[in-house]
Amino acid sequence: MTYFANVPTIEYKGANSTDPLSYRYYNPKQKVMGKTMEEHLRLAVCYWHTFCWEGSDIFGEATFPRAWNQDADPIQRAKHRADAAFEFISKMNLPYYAFHDVDVAPQGSTLKESNKNLKIIADYLAGKMQDTRIKLLWGTANLFSHRRYMAGASTNNNPEVFAYAAAQVKAALDVTHDLNGENYVFWGGREGYDSLLNTDLKQEAEQYAKFLSLIVDYKHKIGFKGTFLIEPKPCEPTKHQYDYDTATVLAFLQKYGLEKEFRVNIEANHATLAGHSFPHEVAYACANNMFGSIDANQGDPQLGWDTDQFPMHLSDLVQVLYAIVAHGGFTTGGFNFDTKLRRQSTDLEDMFYGTICGVDNLARALLIVDGMMTHDEFKTFKQARYSKWHEGLGQDILKGKMDLDALSALALDQNLNPQPVSGHQELLESKLNYLIK
Amino acid sequence: MTYFANVPTIEYKGANSTDPLSYRYYNPKQKVMGKTMEEHLRLAVCYWHTFCWEGSDIFGEATFPRAWNQDADPIQRAKHRADAAFEFISKMNLPYYAFHDVDVAPQGSTLKESNKNLKIIADYLAGKMQDTRIKLLWGTANLFSHRRYMAGASTNNNPEVFAYAAAQVKAALDVTHDLNGENYVFWGGREGYDSLLNTDLKQEAEQYAKFLSLIVDYKHKIGFKGTFLIEPKPCEPTKHQYDYDTATVLAFLQKYGLEKEFRVNIEANHATLAGHSFPHEVAYACANNMFGSIDANQGDPQLGWDTDQFPMHLSDLVQVLYAIVAHGGFTTGGFNFDTKLRRQSTDLEDMFYGTICGVDNLARALLIVDGMMTHDEFKTFKQARYSKWHEGLGQDILKGKMDLDALSALALDQNLNPQPVSGHQELLESKLNYLIK
Amino acid sequence: MTYFANVPTIEYKGANSTDPLSYRYYNPKQKVMGKTMEEHLRLAVCYWHTFCWEGSDIFGEATFPRAWNQDADPIQRAKHRADAAFEFISKMNLPYYAFHDVDVAPQGSTLKESNKNLKIIADYLAGKMQDTRIKLLWGTANLFSHRRYMAGASTNNNPEVFAYAAAQVKAALDVTHDLNGENYVFWGGREGYDSLLNTDLKQEAEQYAKFLSLIVDYKHKIGFKGTFLIEPKPCEPTKHQYDYDTATVLAFLQKYGLEKEFRVNIEANHATLAGHSFPHEVAYACANNMFGSIDANQGDPQLGWDTDQFPMHLSDLVQVLYAIVAHGGFTTGGFNFDTKLRRQSTDLEDMFYGTICGVDNLARALLIVDGMMTHDEFKTFKQARYSKWHEGLGQDILKGKMDLDALSALALDQNLNPQPVSGHQELLESKLNYLIK
Amino acid sequence: MTYFANVPTIEYKGANSTDPLSYRYYNPKQKVMGKTMEEHLRLAVCYWHTFCWEGSDIFGEATFPRAWNQDADPIQRAKHRADAAFEFISKMNLPYYAFHDVDVAPQGSTLKESNKNLKIIADYLAGKMQDTRIKLLWGTANLFSHRRYMAGASTNNNPEVFAYAAAQVKAALDVTHDLNGENYVFWGGREGYDSLLNTDLKQEAEQYAKFLSLIVDYKHKIGFKGTFLIEPKPCEPTKHQYDYDTATVLAFLQKYGLEKEFRVNIEANHATLAGHSFPHEVAYACANNMFGSIDANQGDPQLGWDTDQFPMHLSDLVQVLYAIVAHGGFTTGGFNFDTKLRRQSTDLEDMFYGTICGVDNLARALLIVDGMMTHDEFKTFKQARYSKWHEGLGQDILKGKMDLDALSALALDQNLNPQPVSGHQELLESKLNYLIK
Repeated sequence: MTYFANVPTIEYKGANSTDPLSYRYYNPKQKVMGKTMEEHLRLAVCYWHTFCWEGSDIFGEATFPRAWNQDADPIQRAKHRADAAFEFISKMNLPYYAFHDVDVAPQGSTLKESNKNLKIIADYLAGKMQDTRIKLLWGTANLFSHRRYMAGASTNNNPEVFAYAAAQVKAALDVTHDLNGENYVFWGGREGYDSLLNTDLKQEAEQYAKFLSLIVDYKHKIGFKGTFLIEPKPCEPTKHQYDYDTATVLAFLQKYGLEKEFRVNIEANHATLAGHSFPHEVAYACANNMFGSIDANQGDPQLGWDTDQFPMHLSDLVQVLYAIVAHGGFTTGGFNFDTKLRRQSTDLEDMFYGTICGVDNLARALLIVDGMMTHDEFKTFKQARYSKWHEGLGQDILKGKMDLDALSALALDQNLNPQPVSGHQELLESKLNYLIK
Repeated sequence: MTYFANVPTIEYKGANSTDPLSYRYYNPKQKVMGKTMEEHLRLAVCYWHTFCWEGSDIFGEATFPRAWNQDADPIQRAKHRADAAFEFISKMNLPYYAFHDVDVAPQGSTLKESNKNLKIIADYLAGKMQDTRIKLLWGTANLFSHRRYMAGASTNNNPEVFAYAAAQVKAALDVTHDLNGENYVFWGGREGYDSLLNTDLKQEAEQYAKFLSLIVDYKHKIGFKGTFLIEPKPCEPTKHQYDYDTATVLAFLQKYGLEKEFRVNIEANHATLAGHSFPHEVAYACANNMFGSIDANQGDPQLGWDTDQFPMHLSDLVQVLYAIVAHGGFTTGGFNFDTKLRRQSTDLEDMFYGTICGVDNLARALLIVDGMMTHDEFKTFKQARYSKWHEGLGQDILKGKMDLDALSALALDQNLNPQPVSGHQELLESKLNYLIK
Repeated sequence: MTYFANVPTIEYKGANSTDPLSYRYYNPKQKVMGKTMEEHLRLAVCYWHTFCWEGSDIFGEATFPRAWNQDADPIQRAKHRADAAFEFISKMNLPYYAFHDVDVAPQGSTLKESNKNLKIIADYLAGKMQDTRIKLLWGTANLFSHRRYMAGASTNNNPEVFAYAAAQVKAALDVTHDLNGENYVFWGGREGYDSLLNTDLKQEAEQYAKFLSLIVDYKHKIGFKGTFLIEPKPCEPTKHQYDYDTATVLAFLQKYGLEKEFRVNIEANHATLAGHSFPHEVAYACANNMFGSIDANQGDPQLGWDTDQFPMHLSDLVQVLYAIVAHGGFTTGGFNFDTKLRRQSTDLEDMFYGTICGVDNLARALLIVDGMMTHDEFKTFKQARYSKWHEGLGQDILKGKMDLDALSALALDQNLNPQPVSGHQELLESKLNYLIK
Repeated sequence: MTYFANVPTIEYKGANSTDPLSYRYYNPKQKVMGKTMEEHLRLAVCYWHTFCWEGSDIFGEATFPRAWNQDADPIQRAKHRADAAFEFISKMNLPYYAFHDVDVAPQGSTLKESNKNLKIIADYLAGKMQDTRIKLLWGTANLFSHRRYMAGASTNNNPEVFAYAAAQVKAALDVTHDLNGENYVFWGGREGYDSLLNTDLKQEAEQYAKFLSLIVDYKHKIGFKGTFLIEPKPCEPTKHQYDYDTATVLAFLQKYGLEKEFRVNIEANHATLAGHSFPHEVAYACANNMFGSIDANQGDPQLGWDTDQFPMHLSDLVQVLYAIVAHGGFTTGGFNFDTKLRRQSTDLEDMFYGTICGVDNLARALLIVDGMMTHDEFKTFKQARYSKWHEGLGQDILKGKMDLDALSALALDQNLNPQPVSGHQELLESKLNYLIK
């Protein structure tokens, strides 16, 4: 089935294009800093918000029922949805997609039936992938929507739920592996609590660690070479999620000796809900060898929940891409669009408008970063700023040649009186702003 | 010098007392759950907000100039301040105080002079302590107010600032050791950043870790037996502080192998600024062997900065004390009042009113916890809730007897279909509310 | 049909009751300050969260499907739901209920059919009301869930939506009038915007004002004697709702000369989402003759969306009830429970536990206010504090006897140098805390 | 005295300039949409943050002591400060300045002496203004820093404080009038409360209204032709400020019949602290005839206090300028820089860097708005969107030709079933983003 017959394939038409159904910055095969844009950005479209969700919110029904979600037969419906997804991503000329198990295949009345459905659809997806050359950035299992998971999956008080979740992850990981998925994601939507009054934090941490360990073992057993990604989020749906932010995830992984087995999948909107800037979370992850992948969806600065909007904030995107490029770029990760349309954007074309703009903003940010890198004033500034740590006293300290007594003696003997040196924040911010052209 | 001649010693007069200059709940020698209230709560009054700060805010001058801060001679002024502090704490009948180096002793024009001043005042404090039997809960060094620290102390781009800070900590730790301080606190007010554009996160983390390591070495060298405490705070004064919350501190300490050397000093207001409830931070610290001490000051739920108000939120205090008692109580830590009066509370008596109410709220919470513990319905509820993890499948999972394949096979073979069981959150919340009488 | 056969009628058993299915403070016929508790609190249970909603959230399906929502026939289902509602409220021994049109009656495929359904169910409700003596606190129309309202009802860009909404309100108001509803509520869930880029604020304000004016005219025409209430909320579902808070509502009503025709229905959780304390919104409304009614549901201090929890925060409730009693009490308004259970509270009994605790907290707050009023130290304090405004210079100013020149001359001639007087905030807060026993 | 000898006059050098001490967009005499940039933007530099404040914050001392603030003699110091201010603004080539009374002139030990000082400095400023042709955008009185104002100025519980404040405003308004100030601003930093427990909202509102009325009378008496501006802010320093946001100000003014006498001075950072976007506050003010002037300083999206940063957020600035231009532009208002440097920006040059970037961002936004206006797709979109309100049913409704009965009859008779039409939010957002080049 085709669903977007009225929309042409989205092509690069340059910065002065006025065609809303064209790219102005994203030119997939254009080389930038030694790689094509496509290789740098590794863009993916998610299944759930793009092809499953139809505009409902907590106060209102769906506003844009989709033609591909109408068939009464669940397997047919799933195939239609796959048709729509691959048609859309092809027309958008993007290389990747991503999914939860329940997005692509109908849940059965038993686990066995669900697994069977997943297998049927996996085969169908494999065919689609072959036809379109679209690849799988990552797969995952939805362990939060069904009522059995209301009190958590691995952190549930009932071990049978743990077992059920384990089985579901096994199946989703098998399918991801079969489809050559480049990563597998863990978002613990219900791994958290609503109230401390009925929650044993220590017990649940033990369970969660055990769960991840079992899956790590299984990964090695089956030879899955992709990266395991944890997606931090501070809250929503729970009051408190255990994977609050990257630092919290790192603390947990280190405690259980798992820090080498996981990276983070940072979502812009999750970063800001946790009280951090999006660039902060990326910079922190890079500095701590935790950087994996990105969900590009941003939030609304005035709203306290996950709005999953298309990435529009150029200045943030430039900082994020600058950090990623400086870190060496993505390995298996990429920019996934876990974005959703505003509920009033009811036209099929709106799917394109939103995604085009998001893609273009990332491409534009990449081009700006290219400009920054040529004469990298930011790097030069930082190198000068910290230069004293690469010589004399700085090196003596870092190499452990001075103990506290020695430092105290030095400060007293030399009557140290170090003077402030400007951090030039406004100058640097203005340099960044001027680069956005 | 005496400053509070018009105020009597604050005595316990029972719950029906109408004397605002009496305790209604805090009865220091009363035994509760096997210890006296004094032993449980280990209450301390801080120097800075209580005796140094005079009601200024970012938009306005001091509103309550204190008689003890008037002497033109800095050493005399410092002694008067000490007189006031020990008179106040004695009248309040509390066992501990706490200080920054610059609160108690004037900064000199050189480090040598500052150290000399600190020594003079330390001797004076020792005399006061002997006279009053008031003990030192913790000391610390102020590494954030002087302009030399504007870009951080240990995380400064200038190693000379690191050396200066090291010397200052050495002196403050020496004095804390001499005065039998039971802990030493690190609050990294400027260990963070205002802008990522001029900041190297990885470099600064290395510096910070080195700094703490040197001080740990020194601690062992001099035989200081107190606990080292890090005080998390997400921001203010910097945009982002490295010790954002307990989880972030734990991630950092583990990375550098320092997690056994530090515990956290949790401030209620810092917890809420970081997006957590106060009980959450305490529960998380307990569950991760990081719990050390408390700054009892709470924030305002509508305000986004540190208001350092007296602890008034009974329900939170009950949950916090319940967690602490269940964890075995404080070892070297205690409840410190890093609280400040509202700027309009200009009478000397207001110092007493605020502190009395804060102390009474903690004492009252302790008594409520005593009631909770007798027939601990919360513990009973949790034990029942997680009971399946202590038998059969739960134990098999936790003991590593089932791998992912086995769990999947089990779920499929037994056709698992676990049903939700109520978490009874409202019932538990109401039980808590009814206990507050 | 009956649904709560296993639960007894909830009776007052006194503060020491340990029966979770009893009231400990709410004793409906007990006289407090000249009225019964029932007359003071005027408690209502809402239909939607209590009987329609089944535990779904934006990330998960329903967790507690209700027996009364199962019948395949929509009219039968609506009757079963009414049976459940009146049985529950009767067992809770509460005097009022409240509803949206679509909560009680199924929407038809046409407006005519919807109206017909509403009439059928209204008759059924009338019978229930007669049987149980439960009264209608307020009715309202749901103008936000259907997709036709995605861009607003009265503020929609399509006048036909305005007309549709007008028709819907007419029908809902007619039914409310027929059922002797004591108020009619307007909550403009979609009267706001998602983006300023596609919104004409001025145009939409004109439409909204016209809409309210038409309904006011109709109210007078049909002789409805109840109060019209606007329910402020800052956002959610829209990014910005026009009825942001009480002040915003007042500004709007005054501009269009409607301020005498409306009062506000303040929801605790909406107040806090707007950056105000719950007591603030009530105090502001009272001070500006805008106070009408209350939705008692509170939020979570860490979460940025409407959680609609049962009222647990005693200290806030005491302040709110103190303000209401001082204002003369409710006239047509009351405390409505627009509360919802946590999603994990899946037992039928949880409906009772949550509501009992909420009711008891309000009753307890009322009893505390009674204690406060006996020797009202708060009033006494305020009277003394502002006493200078009731004499001499204060009166001269307020009566307009001094112009700016005269005041300036006075300040200069008398060399005024007014001194700060303590506001004793901590003392007052502690008095409040000690009253909660 | 001169202070910026090393810095050249800042000139326009075009978008490709790499000189950090040049403008790249601000070309004062360049015509845009019929007016020069200078006439459009009406840029002002404030005294307090730019020339008085020296880098202190609540946790730390000044980091950049200024040469012009060193003289021991207060009048000399004030003159040096004025020298610095006019030299800086001249070098920046900006047309306006703005001040509080206490910024420009030293407070004396009596009101008389303060007034005398203000007069001396006003004469000095007049000379400076004549020499430099720099004009006064607005004056104001600081009614919040001195301890006498701790409980408010006009809303103080002591009428003598009201009288003192009245005298201070009279003097400041006289000076503003003498210096041909184009506006006079009221920011009620302490007109609010810290606790409702000691505050009478109604009483304080009466006082505040009386205060403003007296000043309005005085304004007319002396013939001051400038605009009176109220500056909304939700909190800080108080917990709650009475001028919370523009809507709250409007509600208050209407209640006391003052709405024709005041406009608002919107600060970007105050808007966001109140939970609104900066564009929202401007759009709301325009739609309600309240728009007056702007303080351009923005906040940090992660921080909950007023950070007063230079305006960097281009997308917001474009929306704000678009609204202002569409509203007809400023009359007496302008863009004031009430901005402050980050505390680490210690060089004199940083003053220039920050201000240049802020000015350039506004100029750039203006140029973008020029581009938007040429073929105004946003206006076109809105006109089409609301077109049905300009014909048929829409006009009948707005003109009052249909009452509720008629509308209901219409909806029923015509069986109305209005269908959603896309709001195209992403498309519009992307159009805005693409315009920023």
